Amino acid sequence: MLKIVILGTGNLAKHLYTAFTNADDVDLVQIVGRNQKELQQFSEHSTISNSFDCIVDADIYLIAVKDDAITEVSQHLLKKKGIVAHTSGAIGLKAIQTQNKGVFYPLQTFTKGKTVDFGSIPVCIEAEEKESLETLHKLADSISENVHHIDSEQRKKLHLAGVFVNNFTNYLYSVGEEFCLEEGLSFDLLKPLIMETADKIQAMSPKEAQTGPARRNDTKSMESHLELLSKKEHIALYKLLSQAIKQAHEEEL
Amino acid sequence: MLKIVILGTGNLAKHLYTAFTNADDVDLVQIVGRNQKELQQFSEHSTISNSFDCIVDADIYLIAVKDDAITEVSQHLLKKKGIVAHTSGAIGLKAIQTQNKGVFYPLQTFTKGKTVDFGSIPVCIEAEEKESLETLHKLADSISENVHHIDSEQRKKLHLAGVFVNNFTNYLYSVGEEFCLEEGLSFDLLKPLIMETADKIQAMSPKEAQTGPARRNDTKSMESHLELLSKKEHIALYKLLSQAIKQAHEEEL
Repeated sequence: MLKIVILGTGNLAKHLYTAFTNADDVDLVQIVGRNQKELQQFSEHSTISNSFDCIVDADIYLIAVKDDAITEVSQHLLKKKGIVAHTSGAIGLKAIQTQNKGVFYPLQTFTKGKTVDFGSIPVCIEAEEKESLETLHKLADSISENVHHIDSEQRKKLHLAGVFVNNFTNYLYSVGEEFCLEEGLSFDLLKPLIMETADKIQAMSPKEAQTGPARRNDTKSMESHLELLSKKEHIALYKLLSQAIKQAHEEEL
Repeated sequence: MLKIVILGTGNLAKHLYTAFTNADDVDLVQIVGRNQKELQQFSEHSTISNSFDCIVDADIYLIAVKDDAITEVSQHLLKKKGIVAHTSGAIGLKAIQTQNKGVFYPLQTFTKGKTVDFGSIPVCIEAEEKESLETLHKLADSISENVHHIDSEQRKKLHLAGVFVNNFTNYLYSVGEEFCLEEGLSFDLLKPLIMETADKIQAMSPKEAQTGPARRNDTKSMESHLELLSKKEHIALYKLLSQAIKQAHEEEL
């Protein structure tokens, strides 16, 4: 039985709490966080503490706080023997101040109140010591079938890829929503297209899946689209993305 | 029983053929197209012809050819009494040369060999005559539960929105794939994130769903991301998209 402590009470902490509560072989011994109100939500299946000086002993300490606070929180664990692992995609292993350090990064977007199937989420783990890596692997295995050893450089690039495919993609969805609202149409009209576009690349490379006027270098269609756009950032985005698609598929034209 | 003829043998024609073959109350009387080889695939459930001068009589003629060829194809139907409807998102009603004209635009991306659930696809219809609109509505109802009366201006804007949420989004997926390949990682790592991002906005507005460093105006994270990028078009995209997100959420900061 792996004893674990979660430090933090935010969105990721809640999703981890739910996943580990349902996992075999994991004993979630404590949740530690300053926000007493948020902390209450964790009291059903674990003990809670609002003091970083009262952390109980465990095999793994999972730091699920803002990136900027990781180093500071890890300093409260200097005397602990267990593995101290942060959960961030953007931060290197070295941000942790303790000897026995690791990373436990679930590559997913977590939304308040929306359950996710942890089983298919890639969990990216890293540690300097072989034994620590094995322990983190065991912990990851308890909630996911998709565990990967990823070093700090790779993880940073993956996290950046996440910004492109998640944050930036979501912004493009909001542009679509804006166009619908302008025309008095429901954004629901675009939802099946959005799902199909994401679903399509589960089985084929997005480079192959690319369609549209820019891939075909259909200048006439692109010009008539630009005439429909009024906001200068939409025009700039249209031009830049079309140019990038055209360039990526230039050899075909 | 609505008698219909499909003109064209491409991707959309095949998906429509499959959908109408399975629909009650629709009699798919003929498929017309120049490409004899492609045409063969339609012979099981319909008669076929490779001559635009041998089109049989029907209630509706669905033109599923390239945008540029719509007007020309419609000229072969000048003596027909049925409704001549094109299936394009980008082209106005007036491109059709016959008296009784309409639009039958299924708002979806159609991939060769990948079946789609037509039932949930929005079908956007338009016609000048009330009676023609009713007939097109009946046809759309036979394959979809999601039928909308959309005029030419609205349809053009919807189609443009489709370019943003589909073509441009898919390009961002391919950037993610490129980052994975650079690091020797599988693109599979990003697929659950991509699905969750699309799934999330089925129930909440993408504007509310926006996360990431640009929304938080986390300058430090954005700078370290920019340092990881090497291609100038990726740098330009990162800056432009981050700036647009920041601006859209400025009032929150």
